Amino acid sequence: MPKPQKHVFVCAQARPPGHPRGSCAQLGCAQVLQTFAQQFEQGQLYGQFALTSTGCLGACDQGPTVIVYPDAVMYAKVKPEDVAEIVSGHLKEGAPVERLLAPAAVWG
Amino acid sequence: MPKPQKHVFVCAQARPPGHPRGSCAQLGCAQVLQTFAQQFEQGQLYGQFALTSTGCLGACDQGPTVIVYPDAVMYAKVKPEDVAEIVSGHLKEGAPVERLLAPAAVWG
Repeated sequence: MPKPQKHVFVCAQARPPGHPRGSCAQLGCAQVLQTFAQQFEQGQLYGQFALTSTGCLGACDQGPTVIVYPDAVMYAKVKPEDVAEIVSGHLKEGAPVERLLAPAAVWG
Repeated sequence: MPKPQKHVFVCAQARPPGHPRGSCAQLGCAQVLQTFAQQFEQGQLYGQFALTSTGCLGACDQGPTVIVYPDAVMYAKVKPEDVAEIVSGHLKEGAPVERLLAPAAVWG
């Protein structure tokens, strides 16, 4: 792929039911990743931006977590219905979505 | 985790034997990831830098691939014995390791 203008990383870490850390998988990250993929495809954004699933991003109680580089912005508790705002506001217009930012104690 | 100064992403994508795209797993990415993890632990680097495995980064014939953000540098065909140079040269001293850079046709 060409070097993307922005690269979206979506935590896809799973853990067994009952694991004390929980996981982004348990919190619905598959639907978040799927929604990004759909919007990238529908908007023909793959040449401009990249989308990659990851192992644990470390903020398991804040999941589903999403990091956008090179801006080094982490979003927390992202829902599928938040994805359009990240795509339009942050990726396309360059303004991180303030209401979804991870707390500074987690990523600051 | 605190926001890292640099964030190392190592492709950990696997595919079944004989798959036409191959994969970074087939090319030895597990040993590369493991070597980064060992050096992060031994050097107590986890507070400063982050290390995350990923799904496919798209350059399957250039694997194992590694991307360092926020610099947006992709390394190709990384071997475990290359990791120390990336850690010391790039992460600590800020100078990407030229000889390991992915070709511009792949990430340019």
